[in-house]
Amino acid sequence: MKAKTNLTMLCDYYQLTMSNGYFRADLADRICYFDMFYRSVPDNGGFAIAAGLAQVVEYVRDLKFDEEDIEYLRSKGCFDEGFLDYLRNFKFTGDIWAVPEGTPVFPNEPIITVRAPAIQAQFIETFLLLTMNHQCLIATKSNRIVRAAEGRPVAEFGSRRAQGADGAILGARASYIAGCAATACTMADQWFGAPATGTMAHSWVQMFPDEYTAFKTYCKLYPNNATLLVDTYNVLKSGVPNAIRVFKEEGITRCGIRLDSGDLTYLSRKARQMLDEAGLTECKIVASNALDEYIIRDLVRQGARIDSFGVGERLITSRSEPVFGGVYKLAAIEDEQGNIIPKIKISENSAKITTPHFKKVYRIFSKDSGKAEADLICLHDEEFDFTQPLELFDPEATWKRKVYTDYEAKELLVPVFRKGELVYQVPDLQASRAYCQRQVDALWDEVKRFENPHNYYVDLSQKLWDIKRSLLDGAGNQKN
Amino acid sequence: MKAKTNLTMLCDYYQLTMSNGYFRADLADRICYFDMFYRSVPDNGGFAIAAGLAQVVEYVRDLKFDEEDIEYLRSKGCFDEGFLDYLRNFKFTGDIWAVPEGTPVFPNEPIITVRAPAIQAQFIETFLLLTMNHQCLIATKSNRIVRAAEGRPVAEFGSRRAQGADGAILGARASYIAGCAATACTMADQWFGAPATGTMAHSWVQMFPDEYTAFKTYCKLYPNNATLLVDTYNVLKSGVPNAIRVFKEEGITRCGIRLDSGDLTYLSRKARQMLDEAGLTECKIVASNALDEYIIRDLVRQGARIDSFGVGERLITSRSEPVFGGVYKLAAIEDEQGNIIPKIKISENSAKITTPHFKKVYRIFSKDSGKAEADLICLHDEEFDFTQPLELFDPEATWKRKVYTDYEAKELLVPVFRKGELVYQVPDLQASRAYCQRQVDALWDEVKRFENPHNYYVDLSQKLWDIKRSLLDGAGNQKN
Repeated sequence: MKAKTNLTMLCDYYQLTMSNGYFRADLADRICYFDMFYRSVPDNGGFAIAAGLAQVVEYVRDLKFDEEDIEYLRSKGCFDEGFLDYLRNFKFTGDIWAVPEGTPVFPNEPIITVRAPAIQAQFIETFLLLTMNHQCLIATKSNRIVRAAEGRPVAEFGSRRAQGADGAILGARASYIAGCAATACTMADQWFGAPATGTMAHSWVQMFPDEYTAFKTYCKLYPNNATLLVDTYNVLKSGVPNAIRVFKEEGITRCGIRLDSGDLTYLSRKARQMLDEAGLTECKIVASNALDEYIIRDLVRQGARIDSFGVGERLITSRSEPVFGGVYKLAAIEDEQGNIIPKIKISENSAKITTPHFKKVYRIFSKDSGKAEADLICLHDEEFDFTQPLELFDPEATWKRKVYTDYEAKELLVPVFRKGELVYQVPDLQASRAYCQRQVDALWDEVKRFENPHNYYVDLSQKLWDIKRSLLDGAGNQKN
Repeated sequence: MKAKTNLTMLCDYYQLTMSNGYFRADLADRICYFDMFYRSVPDNGGFAIAAGLAQVVEYVRDLKFDEEDIEYLRSKGCFDEGFLDYLRNFKFTGDIWAVPEGTPVFPNEPIITVRAPAIQAQFIETFLLLTMNHQCLIATKSNRIVRAAEGRPVAEFGSRRAQGADGAILGARASYIAGCAATACTMADQWFGAPATGTMAHSWVQMFPDEYTAFKTYCKLYPNNATLLVDTYNVLKSGVPNAIRVFKEEGITRCGIRLDSGDLTYLSRKARQMLDEAGLTECKIVASNALDEYIIRDLVRQGARIDSFGVGERLITSRSEPVFGGVYKLAAIEDEQGNIIPKIKISENSAKITTPHFKKVYRIFSKDSGKAEADLICLHDEEFDFTQPLELFDPEATWKRKVYTDYEAKELLVPVFRKGELVYQVPDLQASRAYCQRQVDALWDEVKRFENPHNYYVDLSQKLWDIKRSLLDGAGNQKN
C-alpha cells in the first residue's frame, strides 16, 4: 500500500487537552482499558460486519508527532513544554485485541479492546472510531445488499457520491470484505486488490455521431470486456438493437449490456428476450441506478433477468443509515499495584450503560449445525470447561436461561499489538472476504432477516454480571 | 497545507477504459465541455452551498501518473502502450470555471464548467464529483444548522462518526465555510485554519476518584479554557454543583459547562439559574448530543438557555440526506474547425434532461433590497445591456415572465484554470466563510425556509432556451 500522509493529528482537540492534563496530573502512565463497541445495528438489522482494523493497525504503528505538529501545538499557547517533549517521543506501547475484519459483530460486545497508558489509550480514540465506524458501516450495508442479490455479483459503483476520498477508497475496501465482487474505484484495486471494473459512461456514447458507432468502436477496442451502456437514447428501440448488431458483427459472445434507468424488471426481461432471440444467450445483463437491498430483493422476486448489480450512492454512504454509532469507553484502570479497577459509565438511558472490566468474548457454535448460537462476554482471565454443558442467561432478563451442549467456543478477539509491537498479520482482502462469507454463513437465517431479525444472544458470564451489578448498585447509591 | 498522497488514480475504472478508447479512436484531443451541477436540494431546502473547489484545484494541478500507476495499468492487459506513454506526460491543459466556495447555488445551474481535450475532461470526473458532492453536502447541511442556531455559535464535533479521514477533515473545512464557528477536528485547524476547540470527555471525569477532583484538576490546568462536562453522573445534583464549587474556588468567571445528554431545554434552564444564583452569569452553557437544525430550532423556540451548540454525526455525515447528487454532464464538443456543437442528454424523466452548450450564469440582485432575485443561464458569449430592463421567463412554464429593473447582474463562475494554468487564487477559509455569510444574507427569507422554501428562479436566456428546445425536438424525432 502507498504511503499516506501521517494522520496522527487527526484527533479531536480534547484528546490533546486531556492528554496534556494527564501528563501534568501525573496520570500519563496510568494503565487504562478502553472498549470499542456499538449499541444498535444500522437499518434495524441483526448484526454488523467488522471492518477497518487494517487502517487502525497502520495508524497505531505509524503514530508520530513531527516538529510541524509540535510547533502547531505550541502556537495554541495551552500545552506544557514537558508535554510537547513527551509527544516528540510518543509511541504506542500498549496492547490491542480486536475481532478480525469480516467478523459478524453484535451490539455491546467489544470489537476492539485497548490496554495502554492513559494518554496513549485516550489519544487514539478519534481515529480508531472514525475508521471503524466508517468501514463497519459500509461493510454492514454491503453485506445486506450482497445477500439481497442471492448469489448474483454486486459491484460497488459509488466513488463519485462518497463522502471524500477515503469514503470512496476505504468504502470500496470494506464493501469487498463484506462480499461485493468488484468495485469501480481504481485505487481500491491498486492499493488493496479489490478488483476494479467498468466500461463506459453515457458521455462515451454521446461523443460519437450515433450509438451504433460508439458501440462499434468500443467492441473493436475491448472485444473481451464489452459491456455496453444501452440507455443513452432508448433501451429497447435503440440501445439493445445496436448492441446486438455490433456483438453479431464482431462475433462477440462473452459480452454484456448495462441498464441504468427505467423499470429494470421490465427492461431486463425484454432485453433478455431480444438477446436470446439473437443467439446471445451468454450476454450478461447488468443493472444499476439507485439500487439498495430492498430494490434488489424486489427485482429478484419479480423475476428480473439481471445477472449482476452495480450499486452506487446507497451503498457507499449507507444512505438509509449513514452513521455507525461505535463508541470507545473506559472499562477499567489499573492502580499503582497493577490491580484492575473496573469502571462503568452509567446513564439515565439504560442502553447506554457500559459493561465494565477487562474482558474477552467467546462465540458459541453448535457442533451439530455449525451455526453460531450466542456470544459470551466474560472476564479476561476467566476459565471455563467447555467440554461441559454451558448455561448462559440474558443479562437484561436473567431468568431467561439456556443450556448449551455439544458446542464449540471460539475466542473472538485476537492479539494485535503486544507491548506496542505489532503481533498480528493483517490478512489480505481476499482472505478477509472469504472469512466474512463463512462467518455470515454460520448465522441462522433468522438473524439475517432485513426486518425484525431474531435477537442474537450476547450474554455476560455470572462473574462479569455480578461485577456490573455491584458497580451499578454503588453508583445508584452515590446518585441519591 | 501538507502534501497529500497524489490521488490521480482515484477514478472510476471506466474513465480509464474510455480514455484509452478516445486515445485509440483519435478523439483524445477533441475539445469537450462538461458541466458539474446538481438537480435537487438536500433536505428539500431552498439552496445549496458550493464547497470543495480548493481540493479540485489541487487535484487538477497535481495530476500525474507515476511509474507505479503505469505499471499497474499495464498489468490489467487492456491498455494500449501508446496510451500508457500518453499518461506518462499527462497534464491538464484545459480551462475550468467555477463558482467560488461559499456561494449559494441552485439546481441545474453550472457550479463548475470544464473545457478540455476529451481524455482530460473525462478523466477528472470522478474526483471532481466526489470532492464537490462531499463538501457541498456538508456545507449545505452546516449552513442549515448554523441558521437554526440564530447567531449562537455552532461547533462541528463529528470526526468520530465521519465517513473516513477526509470525511472528518474536509467535512470540518466545509462546515466552517458554511458558518460553523469552530471544529473539534485538530487537523482541520492545522491544515486549514478552522479553529479547533474542545476540553474534556467523560473519560476525563472517570479517571479521577470523583467529579470534583476531575473538575478541580482541569480548572487548575486550564483556567482560561474551562468548559466542564457536567453529565457524567447527574447534571443538576452533581455536575453543576461541582462545577460551581470549582469555578468559585478557582476564581474563574470566563468558563463554561457542557450538557451532553438529557432534556437540554430543561437542564439548561435549571443550570442557568444555578449558575446565575452563584454569580456565574458569564459562564456559558454548551449543548451537544444528537443535534441537528430541527432540534436546535426547537430548543431555541422553547427558550433553552444554551449559548452554543456542538453538532456531531448529523452534521458530519448530513445524516438526514447523506448524498449530494451532483453530476458531470457533457454539454458540448468542438468540431475540428473549433465550432461548438451543443450536446444534450435526454431522459424519460424530464428533470434529468441537461441544458446544452458552453454557458455562463448571472445572478440578478435588486439594487433596492440588495437581495438575489433570480439566476440567468445564457450562452458563454451572449451579451446583454444590463442597464435596460431584463425580462426573464420560467424555462418550464414559458408564459411566466418577469421584468427586472434597477438590478445588478453579477457573473457567478470565475476562471480557475486557463490553458492548464491556475489563474485563480483560492481565498483563505475565513474569507470564504465571510463571503458565504454575505451571499446567504442576500437571499430572501422565503428561500431559506427549512420546509417548503420558495422556489428561486433559475432561468435560461431566450437563445439558450431555443437551442435546448431544438435539440429536444431533434432528439424526439430520432426516438420515434
